[in-house]
Amino acid sequence: MRKEWDTIEVLRHARHDWLNKLQLIKGNLSLNKVDRVKDIIEEIIIEARQETKLTNLNLPQFASSLLTCNWENHFFQLEYEVADCPYIHRMDDVQLAKWTNQLFEVFDASIEKFQENHLSVTIHPHEEGTRFFFDFSGIITDTSSLKRFLEQPVSSSMEVHLTGMTEDELSIEVFTKAPMGER
Amino acid sequence: MRKEWDTIEVLRHARHDWLNKLQLIKGNLSLNKVDRVKDIIEEIIIEARQETKLTNLNLPQFASSLLTCNWENHFFQLEYEVADCPYIHRMDDVQLAKWTNQLFEVFDASIEKFQENHLSVTIHPHEEGTRFFFDFSGIITDTSSLKRFLEQPVSSSMEVHLTGMTEDELSIEVFTKAPMGER
Repeated sequence: MRKEWDTIEVLRHARHDWLNKLQLIKGNLSLNKVDRVKDIIEEIIIEARQETKLTNLNLPQFASSLLTCNWENHFFQLEYEVADCPYIHRMDDVQLAKWTNQLFEVFDASIEKFQENHLSVTIHPHEEGTRFFFDFSGIITDTSSLKRFLEQPVSSSMEVHLTGMTEDELSIEVFTKAPMGER
Repeated sequence: MRKEWDTIEVLRHARHDWLNKLQLIKGNLSLNKVDRVKDIIEEIIIEARQETKLTNLNLPQFASSLLTCNWENHFFQLEYEVADCPYIHRMDDVQLAKWTNQLFEVFDASIEKFQENHLSVTIHPHEEGTRFFFDFSGIITDTSSLKRFLEQPVSSSMEVHLTGMTEDELSIEVFTKAPMGER
Protein backbone atom coordinates (compact mmCIF):
# COMPACT_ATOMS: atom_id res chain seq x y z
CA MET A 1 0.00 0.00 0.00
CA ARG A 2 1.90 3.05 -1.16
CA LYS A 3 1.03 6.39 0.29
CA GLU A 4 0.48 9.42 -1.87
CA TRP A 5 3.15 11.98 -1.16
CA ASP A 6 2.17 15.61 -0.97
CA THR A 7 4.39 18.65 -1.46
CA ILE A 8 4.69 19.38 2.25
CA GLU A 9 5.77 15.86 3.12
CA VAL A 10 8.22 15.53 0.23
CA LEU A 11 9.81 18.82 1.28
CA ARG A 12 9.86 17.76 4.94
CA HIS A 13 11.77 14.58 4.13
CA ALA A 14 14.07 16.26 1.61
CA ARG A 15 14.83 19.02 4.13
CA HIS A 16 15.60 16.42 6.79
CA ASP A 17 18.01 14.58 4.47
CA TRP A 18 19.76 17.78 3.37
CA LEU A 19 20.07 19.05 6.94
CA ASN A 20 21.75 15.78 7.89
CA LYS A 21 24.30 16.39 5.16
CA LEU A 22 24.75 19.94 6.38
CA GLN A 23 25.31 18.70 9.95
CA LEU A 24 28.06 16.45 8.62
CA ILE A 25 29.70 19.47 6.97
CA LYS A 26 29.21 21.58 10.10
CA GLY A 27 30.63 18.89 12.38
CA ASN A 28 33.75 18.40 10.30
CA LEU A 29 34.19 22.13 9.92
CA SER A 30 34.12 22.61 13.68
CA LEU A 31 36.93 20.02 13.88
CA ASN A 32 38.76 22.07 11.24
CA LYS A 33 38.74 19.13 8.81
CA VAL A 34 38.39 21.31 5.72
CA ASP A 35 39.61 18.63 3.30
CA ARG A 36 37.04 16.17 4.66
CA VAL A 37 34.35 18.83 4.17
CA LYS A 38 35.43 19.27 0.55
CA ASP A 39 35.19 15.49 0.02
CA ILE A 40 31.72 15.40 1.61
CA ILE A 41 30.57 18.21 -0.68
CA GLU A 42 31.84 16.30 -3.73
CA GLU A 43 30.01 13.15 -2.55
CA ILE A 44 26.78 15.13 -2.10
CA ILE A 45 27.12 16.60 -5.60
CA ILE A 46 27.67 13.12 -7.10
CA GLU A 47 24.61 11.82 -5.25
CA ALA A 48 22.52 14.75 -6.49
CA ARG A 49 23.69 14.02 -10.05
CA GLN A 50 22.42 10.44 -9.69
CA GLU A 51 19.09 11.83 -8.56
CA THR A 52 19.00 14.07 -11.63
CA LYS A 53 19.85 11.13 -13.91
CA LEU A 54 17.10 9.02 -12.35
CA THR A 55 14.64 11.89 -12.80
CA ASN A 56 15.69 12.30 -16.44
CA LEU A 57 14.85 8.68 -17.34
CA ASN A 58 11.33 9.90 -18.01
CA LEU A 59 9.90 7.30 -15.62
CA PRO A 60 8.21 9.60 -13.08
CA GLN A 61 6.37 6.93 -11.11
CA PHE A 62 9.30 4.51 -11.00
CA ALA A 63 11.70 7.32 -10.06
CA SER A 64 9.31 8.52 -7.34
CA SER A 65 9.21 4.99 -5.92
CA LEU A 66 13.00 4.90 -5.64
CA LEU A 67 13.33 8.47 -4.38
CA THR A 68 10.76 8.10 -1.59
CA CYS A 69 11.57 4.47 -0.68
CA ASN A 70 13.83 5.28 2.28
CA TRP A 71 11.14 7.55 3.75
CA GLU A 72 8.60 4.77 3.86
CA ASN A 73 9.72 2.61 6.80
CA HIS A 74 10.69 -0.40 4.75
CA PHE A 75 12.84 -3.07 6.38
CA PHE A 76 15.68 -2.35 3.98
CA GLN A 77 17.67 0.66 2.85
CA LEU A 78 17.68 1.44 -0.85
CA GLU A 79 20.42 2.92 -2.95
CA TYR A 80 20.51 3.33 -6.71
CA GLU A 81 22.83 4.18 -9.54
CA VAL A 82 22.03 5.13 -13.11
CA ALA A 83 24.64 4.37 -15.76
CA ASP A 84 25.31 7.03 -18.37
CA CYS A 85 22.85 6.55 -21.13
CA PRO A 86 22.81 7.98 -24.61
CA TYR A 87 19.69 5.88 -25.25
CA ILE A 88 16.52 6.47 -23.32
CA HIS A 89 13.63 4.59 -24.84
CA ARG A 90 9.98 4.69 -23.89
CA MET A 91 9.03 2.27 -21.14
CA ASP A 92 5.82 1.43 -19.39
CA ASP A 93 6.41 3.56 -16.30
CA VAL A 94 3.20 2.52 -14.55
CA GLN A 95 3.91 -1.19 -15.01
CA LEU A 96 7.53 -0.86 -13.89
CA ALA A 97 6.59 1.23 -10.83
CA LYS A 98 3.80 -1.18 -9.89
CA TRP A 99 6.12 -4.19 -10.12
CA THR A 100 8.85 -2.38 -8.16
CA ASN A 101 6.44 -1.41 -5.37
CA GLN A 102 5.24 -5.00 -5.20
CA LEU A 103 8.86 -6.15 -4.97
CA PHE A 104 9.39 -3.76 -2.03
CA GLU A 105 6.35 -5.26 -0.28
CA VAL A 106 7.48 -8.84 -0.90
CA PHE A 107 10.93 -7.96 0.45
CA ASP A 108 9.40 -6.42 3.59
CA ALA A 109 7.49 -9.64 4.21
CA SER A 110 10.42 -11.96 3.43
CA ILE A 111 13.38 -10.48 5.27
CA GLU A 112 14.49 -10.21 8.88
CA LYS A 113 13.26 -6.89 10.28
CA PHE A 114 15.61 -4.33 11.85
CA GLN A 115 18.72 -5.87 10.31
CA GLU A 116 21.30 -4.46 7.94
CA ASN A 117 19.25 -5.10 4.83
CA HIS A 118 20.25 -3.28 1.66
CA LEU A 119 18.74 -3.16 -1.77
CA SER A 120 20.85 -1.72 -4.54
CA VAL A 121 19.25 -0.83 -7.85
CA THR A 122 21.43 -0.27 -10.89
CA ILE A 123 19.95 0.97 -14.14
CA HIS A 124 21.64 0.40 -17.49
CA PRO A 125 19.85 1.87 -20.49
CA HIS A 126 20.92 0.33 -23.83
CA GLU A 127 19.83 0.68 -27.41
CA GLU A 128 17.77 -2.54 -27.41
CA GLY A 129 16.24 -1.95 -23.98
CA THR A 130 17.00 -1.12 -20.36
CA ARG A 131 18.42 -3.49 -17.75
CA PHE A 132 17.61 -3.04 -14.08
CA PHE A 133 19.69 -4.95 -11.54
CA PHE A 134 18.16 -5.35 -8.08
CA ASP A 135 20.80 -6.67 -5.67
CA PHE A 136 19.74 -7.45 -2.14
CA SER A 137 22.07 -8.19 0.75
CA GLY A 138 20.80 -8.92 4.25
CA ILE A 139 18.87 -11.68 5.92
CA ILE A 140 16.18 -13.45 3.89
CA THR A 141 13.69 -15.44 5.97
CA ASP A 142 11.23 -16.48 3.29
CA THR A 143 12.90 -17.42 0.02
CA SER A 144 9.82 -19.17 -1.39
CA SER A 145 7.59 -16.03 -1.38
CA LEU A 146 10.29 -14.10 -3.15
CA LYS A 147 10.76 -16.89 -5.69
CA ARG A 148 7.02 -17.13 -6.27
CA PHE A 149 6.75 -13.40 -6.90
CA LEU A 150 9.76 -13.32 -9.21
CA GLU A 151 8.48 -16.26 -11.28
CA GLN A 152 5.24 -14.50 -12.14
CA PRO A 153 5.31 -13.30 -15.74
CA VAL A 154 4.90 -9.52 -15.97
CA SER A 155 4.36 -8.68 -19.63
CA SER A 156 5.81 -9.30 -23.07
CA SER A 157 7.88 -6.10 -22.84
CA MET A 158 9.21 -6.73 -19.34
CA GLU A 159 11.17 -9.81 -18.32
CA VAL A 160 12.16 -10.66 -14.76
CA HIS A 161 14.97 -13.11 -13.99
CA LEU A 162 16.14 -14.34 -10.61
CA THR A 163 19.88 -14.59 -11.27
CA GLY A 164 21.10 -15.61 -7.82
CA MET A 165 19.78 -16.39 -4.37
CA THR A 166 21.34 -17.47 -1.07
CA GLU A 167 20.10 -16.76 2.47
CA ASP A 168 21.79 -13.39 2.55
CA GLU A 169 21.93 -12.33 -1.07
CA LEU A 170 19.54 -12.13 -3.95
CA SER A 171 20.02 -10.81 -7.47
CA ILE A 172 17.32 -9.96 -9.92
CA GLU A 173 17.67 -8.75 -13.46
CA VAL A 174 14.79 -6.97 -15.13
CA PHE A 175 14.85 -6.24 -18.84
CA THR A 176 12.42 -3.87 -20.53
CA LYS A 177 12.51 -4.12 -24.30
CA ALA A 178 12.63 -0.92 -26.31
CA PRO A 179 9.55 -0.49 -28.53
CA MET A 180 10.16 -1.73 -32.12
CA GLY A 181 10.43 1.73 -33.65
CA GLU A 182 13.08 2.81 -31.15
CA ARG A 183 15.57 -0.08 -31.45
CA MET B 1 -3.66 28.87 -12.59
CA ARG B 2 -1.70 26.84 -10.12
CA LYS B 3 0.01 23.72 -11.31
CA GLU B 4 -0.14 20.48 -9.40
CA TRP B 5 3.29 19.60 -8.12
CA ASP B 6 4.42 16.00 -8.27
CA THR B 7 7.12 14.34 -6.19
CA ILE B 8 9.71 14.40 -8.96
CA GLU B 9 9.28 18.10 -9.63
CA VAL B 10 9.23 19.10 -5.98
CA LEU B 11 12.46 17.16 -5.46
CA ARG B 12 14.00 18.66 -8.59
CA HIS B 13 13.38 22.21 -7.37
CA ALA B 14 14.37 21.44 -3.77
CA ARG B 15 17.58 19.78 -5.02
CA HIS B 16 18.35 22.83 -7.18
CA ASP B 17 17.89 25.20 -4.23
CA TRP B 18 19.99 23.06 -1.89
CA LEU B 19 22.76 22.65 -4.47
CA ASN B 20 22.89 26.44 -4.83
CA LYS B 21 23.46 26.70 -1.08
CA LEU B 22 26.12 24.01 -1.30
CA GLN B 23 27.87 25.90 -4.11
CA LEU B 24 27.98 28.95 -1.87
CA ILE B 25 29.63 26.84 0.83
CA LYS B 26 32.00 25.26 -1.69
CA GLY B 27 32.95 28.62 -3.19
CA ASN B 28 33.76 30.20 0.16
CA LEU B 29 35.61 27.10 1.27
CA SER B 30 37.86 27.22 -1.79
CA LEU B 31 38.69 30.83 -0.82
CA ASN B 32 39.46 29.52 2.68
CA LYS B 33 36.72 31.68 4.22
CA VAL B 34 35.84 29.15 6.91
CA ASP B 35 34.07 31.69 9.15
CA ARG B 36 31.90 32.84 6.27
CA VAL B 37 31.02 29.17 5.59
CA LYS B 38 30.00 28.74 9.23
CA ASP B 39 27.76 31.84 8.96
CA ILE B 40 26.19 30.52 5.74
CA ILE B 41 25.45 27.18 7.42
CA GLU B 42 23.76 28.98 10.34
CA GLU B 43 21.66 31.02 7.89
CA ILE B 44 20.61 27.86 6.06
CA ILE B 45 19.61 26.20 9.35
CA ILE B 46 17.54 29.26 10.36
CA GLU B 47 15.83 29.23 6.95
CA ALA B 48 15.09 25.50 7.28
CA ARG B 49 13.61 26.15 10.73
CA GLN B 50 11.24 28.70 9.20
CA GLU B 51 10.21 26.09 6.66
CA THR B 52 9.51 23.64 9.48
CA LYS B 53 7.46 26.24 11.37
CA LEU B 54 5.43 27.02 8.26
CA THR B 55 4.82 23.32 7.72
CA ASN B 56 3.74 22.89 11.35
CA LEU B 57 0.98 25.50 11.07
CA ASN B 58 -1.26 22.69 9.87
CA LEU B 59 -2.17 24.62 6.73
CA PRO B 60 -0.85 22.23 4.06
CA GLN B 61 -2.29 24.00 1.03
CA PHE B 62 -1.35 27.49 2.18
CA ALA B 63 2.15 26.29 3.14
CA SER B 64 2.55 24.57 -0.23
CA SER B 65 1.60 27.81 -1.98
CA LEU B 66 4.33 29.70 -0.15
CA LEU B 67 6.92 26.94 -0.45
CA THR B 68 6.50 26.49 -4.20
CA CYS B 69 5.85 30.16 -5.07
CA ASN B 70 9.42 30.97 -6.13
CA TRP B 71 9.43 27.95 -8.47
CA GLU B 72 6.42 29.21 -10.38
CA ASN B 73 7.79 32.06 -12.50
CA HIS B 74 5.95 34.83 -10.74
CA PHE B 75 7.07 38.41 -11.30
CA PHE B 76 8.06 38.74 -7.67
CA GLN B 77 10.23 36.90 -5.18
CA LEU B 78 8.57 35.65 -2.03
CA GLU B 79 10.01 35.32 1.43
CA TYR B 80 8.20 34.46 4.63
CA GLU B 81 8.65 34.36 8.36
CA VAL B 82 6.60 32.61 10.98
CA ALA B 83 6.61 34.09 14.49
CA ASP B 84 6.88 31.70 17.41
CA CYS B 85 3.43 30.54 18.26
CA PRO B 86 2.18 28.75 21.34
CA TYR B 87 -1.32 28.97 19.83
CA ILE B 88 -2.20 27.28 16.59
CA HIS B 89 -5.91 27.32 15.97
CA ARG B 90 -7.85 25.69 13.21
CA MET B 91 -8.14 27.75 10.05
CA ASP B 92 -9.80 27.26 6.72
CA ASP B 93 -6.69 26.15 4.82
CA VAL B 94 -8.45 25.83 1.46
CA GLN B 95 -9.95 29.33 1.66
CA LEU B 96 -6.67 30.89 2.78
CA ALA B 97 -4.67 29.10 0.07
CA LYS B 98 -7.19 30.04 -2.61
CA TRP B 99 -7.14 33.71 -1.60
CA THR B 100 -3.32 33.72 -1.45
CA ASN B 101 -3.01 32.16 -4.91
CA GLN B 102 -5.44 34.75 -6.26
CA LEU B 103 -3.34 37.48 -4.62
CA PHE B 104 -0.25 36.10 -6.40
CA GLU B 105 -2.10 36.27 -9.73
CA VAL B 106 -3.33 39.81 -9.14
CA PHE B 107 0.21 40.87 -8.24
CA ASP B 108 1.58 39.28 -11.42
CA ALA B 109 -0.91 41.29 -13.46
CA SER B 110 -0.38 44.55 -11.56
CA ILE B 111 3.37 44.94 -11.21
CA GLU B 112 6.26 45.77 -13.52
CA LYS B 113 7.72 42.53 -14.84
CA PHE B 114 11.42 41.64 -14.44
CA GLN B 115 12.00 44.18 -11.71
CA GLU B 116 13.15 43.82 -8.14
CA ASN B 117 9.72 42.93 -6.81
CA HIS B 118 9.51 41.34 -3.38
CA LEU B 119 6.64 40.00 -1.39
CA SER B 120 7.27 39.32 2.27
CA VAL B 121 4.74 37.29 4.25
CA THR B 122 4.87 37.38 8.04
CA ILE B 123 2.65 35.11 10.07
CA HIS B 124 1.71 35.88 13.69
CA PRO B 125 -0.49 33.32 15.37
CA HIS B 126 -2.30 34.62 18.48
CA GLU B 127 -4.86 33.26 20.88
CA GLU B 128 -7.77 35.09 19.27
CA GLY B 129 -6.69 34.38 15.69
CA THR B 130 -3.81 34.57 13.26
CA ARG B 131 -2.51 37.70 11.54
CA PHE B 132 -0.83 37.50 8.13
CA PHE B 133 1.11 40.53 6.89
CA PHE B 134 1.77 40.68 3.16
CA ASP B 135 4.29 43.44 2.43
CA PHE B 136 5.13 44.15 -1.18
CA SER B 137 7.97 46.33 -2.39
CA GLY B 138 8.68 46.87 -6.06
CA ILE B 139 6.96 48.65 -8.91
CA ILE B 140 3.16 48.62 -8.99
CA THR B 141 1.65 49.51 -12.37
CA ASP B 142 -2.02 48.86 -11.67
CA THR B 143 -3.09 49.96 -8.21
CA SER B 144 -6.80 49.81 -9.00
CA SER B 145 -6.88 46.05 -9.77
CA LEU B 146 -5.08 45.35 -6.51
CA LYS B 147 -7.45 47.61 -4.60
CA ARG B 148 -10.48 46.00 -6.21
CA PHE B 149 -9.27 42.52 -5.30
CA LEU B 150 -8.41 43.51 -1.72
CA GLU B 151 -11.79 45.15 -1.16
CA GLN B 152 -13.69 41.97 -1.97
CA PRO B 153 -15.05 40.41 1.22
CA VAL B 154 -13.70 36.89 1.73
CA SER B 155 -15.67 35.33 4.59
CA SER B 156 -16.85 36.03 8.12
CA SER B 157 -13.80 34.25 9.54
CA MET B 158 -11.24 35.97 7.29
CA GLU B 159 -10.79 39.74 7.07
CA VAL B 160 -8.54 41.47 4.56
CA HIS B 161 -7.31 45.05 5.10
CA LEU B 162 -5.23 47.17 2.78
CA THR B 163 -3.11 49.05 5.33
CA GLY B 164 -0.84 51.02 3.03
CA MET B 165 -0.23 51.62 -0.67
CA THR B 166 2.16 53.78 -2.67
CA GLU B 167 3.56 53.16 -6.15
CA ASP B 168 6.35 51.01 -4.79
CA GLU B 169 4.94 49.59 -1.58
CA LEU B 170 1.81 47.86 -0.49
CA SER B 171 0.83 46.40 2.87
CA ILE B 172 -1.99 44.00 3.52
CA GLU B 173 -3.12 42.58 6.82
CA VAL B 174 -5.21 39.43 6.87
CA PHE B 175 -6.85 38.26 10.05
CA THR B 176 -8.34 34.80 10.47
CA LYS B 177 -10.47 34.48 13.59
CA ALA B 178 -9.97 31.43 15.79
CA PRO B 179 -13.12 29.29 15.97
CA MET B 180 -15.28 30.11 19.06
CA GLY B 181 -14.30 26.95 20.98
CA GLU B 182 -10.57 27.64 20.54
CA ARG B 183 -10.36 31.23 21.75
